[in-house]
Parts: sequence; C-alpha cells; structure tokens
Amino acid sequence: MNLLSGTSELAAKLTERLGRVACVFEGQLRSEVPAVDALTRHVDRYRGKMLRPTLVVLSGWAVEEAAGQEVAATGPKLDTLAAVAEMIHMATLVHDDVLDEASMRRGGATVNSLRGNETAVMLGDFLIASSFHLCSTLGIPWLNAALGETTTQLCSGEILQLTHRGNMTLSESTYFEIIRLKTAVLSGACCGLAARIAGAPAAQVTALSRYGEAIGMAFQIQDDLLDLVGDEGIVGKTLGIDVQKGKLTLPIVIHLARADEVTRARTLEAIRTCDRRGLLALVNATGSLEAARSKATERAGSAKEHLVELGRGPAIELLSQIADATVSRTS
Amino acid sequence: MNLLSGTSELAAKLTERLGRVACVFEGQLRSEVPAVDALTRHVDRYRGKMLRPTLVVLSGWAVEEAAGQEVAATGPKLDTLAAVAEMIHMATLVHDDVLDEASMRRGGATVNSLRGNETAVMLGDFLIASSFHLCSTLGIPWLNAALGETTTQLCSGEILQLTHRGNMTLSESTYFEIIRLKTAVLSGACCGLAARIAGAPAAQVTALSRYGEAIGMAFQIQDDLLDLVGDEGIVGKTLGIDVQKGKLTLPIVIHLARADEVTRARTLEAIRTCDRRGLLALVNATGSLEAARSKATERAGSAKEHLVELGRGPAIELLSQIADATVSRTS
Repeated sequence: MNLLSGTSELAAKLTERLGRVACVFEGQLRSEVPAVDALTRHVDRYRGKMLRPTLVVLSGWAVEEAAGQEVAATGPKLDTLAAVAEMIHMATLVHDDVLDEASMRRGGATVNSLRGNETAVMLGDFLIASSFHLCSTLGIPWLNAALGETTTQLCSGEILQLTHRGNMTLSESTYFEIIRLKTAVLSGACCGLAARIAGAPAAQVTALSRYGEAIGMAFQIQDDLLDLVGDEGIVGKTLGIDVQKGKLTLPIVIHLARADEVTRARTLEAIRTCDRRGLLALVNATGSLEAARSKATERAGSAKEHLVELGRGPAIELLSQIADATVSRTS
Repeated sequence: MNLLSGTSELAAKLTERLGRVACVFEGQLRSEVPAVDALTRHVDRYRGKMLRPTLVVLSGWAVEEAAGQEVAATGPKLDTLAAVAEMIHMATLVHDDVLDEASMRRGGATVNSLRGNETAVMLGDFLIASSFHLCSTLGIPWLNAALGETTTQLCSGEILQLTHRGNMTLSESTYFEIIRLKTAVLSGACCGLAARIAGAPAAQVTALSRYGEAIGMAFQIQDDLLDLVGDEGIVGKTLGIDVQKGKLTLPIVIHLARADEVTRARTLEAIRTCDRRGLLALVNATGSLEAARSKATERAGSAKEHLVELGRGPAIELLSQIADATVSRTS
C-alpha cells in the first residue's frame, strides 16, 4: 500500500512532514537505559505505512483548506499528535505479536521472537507510557483525556476479541463491534482530534472522525482478506495466523453463517488443520470473500461521503485517495 | 503488613479515605463491554496493602499539617491521584504475573492462569490506559506529564531487569538502579505529586519525593527477602519465583559477590534445582541475608530522616510508622 501514489506537490510536502513526525517519534523513545534504547531502535523498523500519522497531518490540512487558509500552516502540535498515535499503534503491534506468537513483522523478526515474550510485553508497556508522556507535553488537558479514552477502548476491543476466540458462531455485529473498538476508534481519533487541534468547526470534527472510523473499519476488513488471500512475501508477516488462533475474520464469519452443515464441517476441519488453501476455496465458493470485499468497499465509500462536509481541495483529495487505497492495497 | 496498626483518629480517617479511593478506582474501571467488566472486577481483589494510595493521602495530609491547616482538608484530587497510582501498580502486577508465569496472587488465581496470557496482557494495557484516562480528568497538564514519565521509567526498570535475567554477576549498583526505576520512582511520585497538588513548598515536595523513593527501595528489598524466607501461605503468592526465573534478589547478589568458588558453585546449583531451603542456608552462612536486611533498614531510616523537613504531626507520624512497617512486614 503506497499512500503517497499521487505525485502532487502536497504528496511531497506530506512525505517531508512524515519525516518530522518520525523525528518526534524517535526523540521521545530515546532512553538513558541502553537496553531500552536498543529495543526502541529495533521497533523503529515497524513503522511501515504510517497510516495514522498521515491521517493526522492530512486532517489538519483539510481543515485549513476548508477555512481557505494556506495549507501546511498547522504547527508542530499535529506532528506530536501524529507521533503519539503511531506510538500507540506500535505498542499494539508489539503486544499483538506476543498474543499471536508471530515471528515476522514487516519482513523482520518480532521482538518476542528475538528477545522473548517478557521483553515484548514490557516494551509495549513502555511504548504506551511514552505515548501518554509525549501527548502530555502539548499541555492540552482535553487531548490527554481523549487519548486515554481511545486507548482504553482499543484495549476493550482486544479483550472482546479474545473472549470470542474459537467462537465459531461469532455474529457479524459482534465482529464489527470488535474491529470498531480495536482499530476504528484510533483512526477516528487521529482525524477528529487533529481537526479539533486545527480549530475546525464541530461539523467538520464530526465528519473527519467518521471518515477516520470508516477507513479504520475498511482497513481492518482488508487485513482480514489479506490474511486469507495475501502473499506472505508482500504482506510481510506470518499469514493465516488469525484463523489458526481461532480469531474469526469477516470472510469466514460470513461464510460460516451461509454454509450448509457439510460445508461447515469441512470449513472447521480446514481451520483445524491450518489448510489455508482449502479454506480459501470453501469461503470463495459461498461468495463470502466477495461479500467481505463489498463490506470493505462500502466503508471506504462511506468514508469519502463524510469528506463532502469539508468541500474540495488537494488535502481532501488525498484523504479520498487513501480511502480507495485502503481497500485496493495488497500489503 | 498492616499499615494501619495505629488506633489513632487519623488511622480511622485514613481507612475511610481509602474506601473513597477504592470507589474512584472501581468507577473508572467499569466498562460497557461485559468481558472487560468481569475482568476488572476480578482484579479488584488484587488491591491488597493499598500502599501507594496510602502514601498519596498521607503526603497530602502531612503538607497540611506542616502548614498548620486543618488535616483532611485536601480534596478529591488526591483521591483520584491515589486511584491512578494504584491502577498503574495493578497493571504491573498483572503483567508481572504473565512474565513470572505465576499462578497465585494475594491468595487468589492470577488472570493469566485463569484466562491465559493474552487476556492478561490486554488487561494490563487496559489498566495502564485507564490510569492515564483517570489522571487526565483532573485537567492538570504537569501531572499528566509527570505520570507519563514515571510510568515510562517503571517500564525501563522492568526491561533493565529482564536484560540482566540470568546474569549471575549482577552488581549491587545495577540491582539498585533496577529497583529504583521499577519500584521507587512510583512510590516517590505518589508522595511528591501529592505534596505538589496539596500546594507544598518546593523543599517539602523534594523531601516527600525522597521519602517515597526510599521506602520504595526498602519495600522492594523486603520483597526480595520474603521471596527467600517468606511463608507462601502468609505472603499469598508463589515464592522462590524470582530466583527460579534468573531474577537475582539482593541477598543473592550480595552473597554471590562474597562467596568463594565452592560456595558459588553450590549456590548456582541450588538456584538451578530450585532448592529454596538449600539456597537459604548458603546465603545465610555468608551473612548476606543479614546484610540485605541492613540495607532495607538503612533505606527505611533514610526515609524517616526526610520527614524532618515537615516537622511533627499525626500524619507525619503515620508516614514514619509506614517506613518501619515496610521492613518489619512478613507479607
């Protein structure tokens, strides 16, 4: 997924801006304890798509565009918020890898596989604490509160998902509640909080929050699809892990609800034996892969509709392209 | 350890106040996600000594005493800070139990043993996020920053400890740096931040911070001693775990530095075979148990000296008693 497929001047500015965000991110994670410093430098490589920082920066710019101000005038506050969001996301990646016993992440070894689960758990905690510390440097009390609530919801989503692990009758509505909490709330916060910091009127804050939530949902569904149909070399992480750990993905949730008894039994057997190819054929046969794809596309479309509130402009156009890229990406 | 051994009027007030803190604590952890709610209710039982909330409340009172104000006038802000500190502590307990593969905590089953490591990791994250959320409700920017830094240091201490796991030549100075970061920084923050909220002059803030750090160190050394000599039924957690996991405790650090080659080999063998009784005899023979006890007592004494800055009064007297109780406790 290349979020910066556009060759516009704005895309170049965005790239430069993400460099600044990376700088804030790395600066916060420097530690006087050498062991901690070595670990956070390793984690630096997990920064892949920088989706959340991109959402923060572009949301700020979109608000400026909507107000007819010069684009790119929003200050370092948004860089900090962007780094904070990426740090929270990174913490969940590190802990997710422990939960999933994953050995690869973005083509490199995971912290848990290199240094053990204990270190990975503590490093995740360090990242969460660092994100709050960094956020507090802005001195905006409502922002700390919003960030605390967002992270709490994110953890609730992970716990809800764990509670339903191995539940082969997971309903679509529970599935959507899980991904809303564990993924969409954070992407929604990236856009909504950035808009608020940039001084947007309430209607734009709401519109951008909803845009962010919708692309978060689309992004997660696409992740589910890639876990089933993706190429491990391209995606850069161990695939088929979700299903193997009893974590039902949307194509399979839809498929199991549609399947007759024989198909259902075959599906459960394919899951049990980690037969990813067989599972894919079964899910495809009931049209569930296509159905899940539609749901992702629907969310991406809904995300773009929310942008109408902000009018037109280059940053808003880039946000719209991101919505499309979320569901067309192959990694 | 009974922190409220005094029968004074103030001890009764403190008990009442800790009830309020528990109420704030529980209120923050209520969740609309039933799975999360059930887990946090389980964790409620981990609240044992309530040492950190006690330090917060008494530090606030001590400052009022020192200013000649009526005691117990400090408001709900300190109750919130007390609940925040307890929540951070609780998060570390939940994650420590994952790291230690412990099955018992305060006489009850640990979350990891009941619900698996994954849920325990996420519950710990939920508690950290909730503590920051709760802290941010006070709307005090410097407090959010201080709490973020404290928690970051706490995690650094845990990582530093993990780095030295199995290091049989751990130096005393590294040992002290580990326990300072992982334990004393938080207890120091409880006292220092409470003092600041209560409007103390800078010298008192410093004195109370140092008091808190010193009793944190004493507390951790006493924990180390109890891991070796304590009674599992009284302590309420699986003992001998620290040594078994290659986590050197102070008596053993001192002992290994003192031991001749034969004793050293015997000691390593006792650690390898988890022979707690044999280990105790060896450590005792070099006087290292007594040496570690002295270090704990020394820290407790230093804690009391810092209280001189605040003069005399019932709350200050209780803080002094806590310093003594920290090293005389058997659980």
